[in-house]
Amino acid sequence: MTALAASLGDPAGIGPELLCEAWIRRAEAGPAPFFAVGGARVLAAAAAMRGIDLPIAPIADPAEAADAFAHGLPVLTGDDGDYRPGEPDREGAALALASLTRATALAVAGEASGIVTGPISKARLAEVGFAFPGQTEFVADACGIAWHDAVMMLAGPTLRTVPLTVHCALAEVPRLLSVELVTSRSRIAAEALRRDFGIERPRLAVAGLNPHAGEGGKFGDEEARIITPAIDALRAEGIEVTGPYPADAMFAAHERTRYDLAICMYHDQALIPLKALDFDAGVNITLGLPIVRSSPDHGTAFAIAGRRLADPGATVAAIRMAGECAGRRAAQRGAA
Amino acid sequence: MTALAASLGDPAGIGPELLCEAWIRRAEAGPAPFFAVGGARVLAAAAAMRGIDLPIAPIADPAEAADAFAHGLPVLTGDDGDYRPGEPDREGAALALASLTRATALAVAGEASGIVTGPISKARLAEVGFAFPGQTEFVADACGIAWHDAVMMLAGPTLRTVPLTVHCALAEVPRLLSVELVTSRSRIAAEALRRDFGIERPRLAVAGLNPHAGEGGKFGDEEARIITPAIDALRAEGIEVTGPYPADAMFAAHERTRYDLAICMYHDQALIPLKALDFDAGVNITLGLPIVRSSPDHGTAFAIAGRRLADPGATVAAIRMAGECAGRRAAQRGAA
Repeated sequence: MTALAASLGDPAGIGPELLCEAWIRRAEAGPAPFFAVGGARVLAAAAAMRGIDLPIAPIADPAEAADAFAHGLPVLTGDDGDYRPGEPDREGAALALASLTRATALAVAGEASGIVTGPISKARLAEVGFAFPGQTEFVADACGIAWHDAVMMLAGPTLRTVPLTVHCALAEVPRLLSVELVTSRSRIAAEALRRDFGIERPRLAVAGLNPHAGEGGKFGDEEARIITPAIDALRAEGIEVTGPYPADAMFAAHERTRYDLAICMYHDQALIPLKALDFDAGVNITLGLPIVRSSPDHGTAFAIAGRRLADPGATVAAIRMAGECAGRRAAQRGAA
Repeated sequence: MTALAASLGDPAGIGPELLCEAWIRRAEAGPAPFFAVGGARVLAAAAAMRGIDLPIAPIADPAEAADAFAHGLPVLTGDDGDYRPGEPDREGAALALASLTRATALAVAGEASGIVTGPISKARLAEVGFAFPGQTEFVADACGIAWHDAVMMLAGPTLRTVPLTVHCALAEVPRLLSVELVTSRSRIAAEALRRDFGIERPRLAVAGLNPHAGEGGKFGDEEARIITPAIDALRAEGIEVTGPYPADAMFAAHERTRYDLAICMYHDQALIPLKALDFDAGVNITLGLPIVRSSPDHGTAFAIAGRRLADPGATVAAIRMAGECAGRRAAQRGAA
């Protein structure tokens, strides 16, 4: 059985301790085994500082991970460093990058069933030569996929959202939206919900950009000019899409049951409801890639690293989700 | 004891049936008595259609309301109409406007301790001569207060928010923001939390406009140019204000305990978290007025009117909140 590869994230952040916790809580993390890519010394120190009795099971090959997993957290030997929680430095950033790079390569080569990436500091990684806006783009690139074809989805226990625009000023959002952006991302997302999440006929709900979804054109014209034509085009292709919905109402409890995925126009429209509802269990999963990739939806949290404060819920959920998606892909390959 | 005046809202909407339900649930609605302004026939029919055994207690003067309240829903005699749920018309809009106008006048004259306004359709009201963007502006105007000095606050059981901009295109938001807008609204809100909500030292948390609150100027400059200087100015006045915070993180459960009010830059930033968390109990309350005014934070819901589906939670909460605010004002007048 092929295992999931987990990158360390920045060793000064909460990534290592959460990976240790995830092995302890492996029953919650689902049946898929996982292994850490490098950092045996960092992980042992993080476990000790967290007060966890964690056996480390060094492995030389990912193929050993599934068997080793029963006895301890399998760690692929190789790059390592010192554990200095809360004190990020270049050495740690280099270790984070090496772990991410190798984990991704293993998944691309089929030696890992997918990757779960630990939280990194983009600013720190940039200092050691990382030339991508984030891990999503790095992974897409390693897979030979154009950045814009890798779709970031945020998933919690009660809500899934895709932000169509992400790290840009709010003032930029209206001019970044286009019919093509809405349709291409929605298509990729619908296909991924079918393939990776086992939702045969995914229901997509598209948010409006403006308050009350523009209230019939009274506030802004993006709904009429961009969003509605995109919805019409997607429906013509047979995808089950509705909207545009007033964004304030569509995340209410009784509305959330009516769709499988909310397509959102901007970062905070997608992330405010997700974090308000599911802060400690949010997973960031990249759709549209040849490999499975998930990540806990939080940062390095340098300020609380090594202090036994970080909640492992999102890491456990990210591993479980990646394992489920990888399992479905394996079953489809088996059936094909 | 002076009672709260409740306007009917559009008689074709869910306002009348919820007012009937609120009297049935008067124990939850708090100790303050309330009376409906007009619409005895509408209310009796709405109660019957909802299957409620509601005694109507007609009163000719608001001063009779407190005594009558024990025996039934007091209804100030006067304007009335027919109950046609789901079928809004001019006659109904005229009744809604008459009820709102009279309720407001009673509060301004001190004959009511405050007003709880039922949901109206702005488009319908405009057809019968209503020249205001919404009820908030109408009430401000009736009080002799400039529109921009009436501050809309949304309050649920777990969150209070003030949107600094409301019914405009999202693209307009960045240019509508100013230091003056942030400081003037925050000042009014802080004073109202003290006076009307009994929070001696209110803690205001100000949201950023851009993702990650701009991440140090990487996405947009509104945080540096407008929001931070406004926060500094407010702090210099002794108001307890912090931020700007990344909007996606500040509504998470553990963050919400750290402030009494979130100052938000735009409509959906304030309303997405509120409705995601507290959809059926959201109250819209106007701060900065000489009278107390609250309203359930939902619309007319013509589609479900008369069908026993509308949730009375927000109406009950609006009455309770108005009653509490009116009680504090009365106590302050008594002490002064």
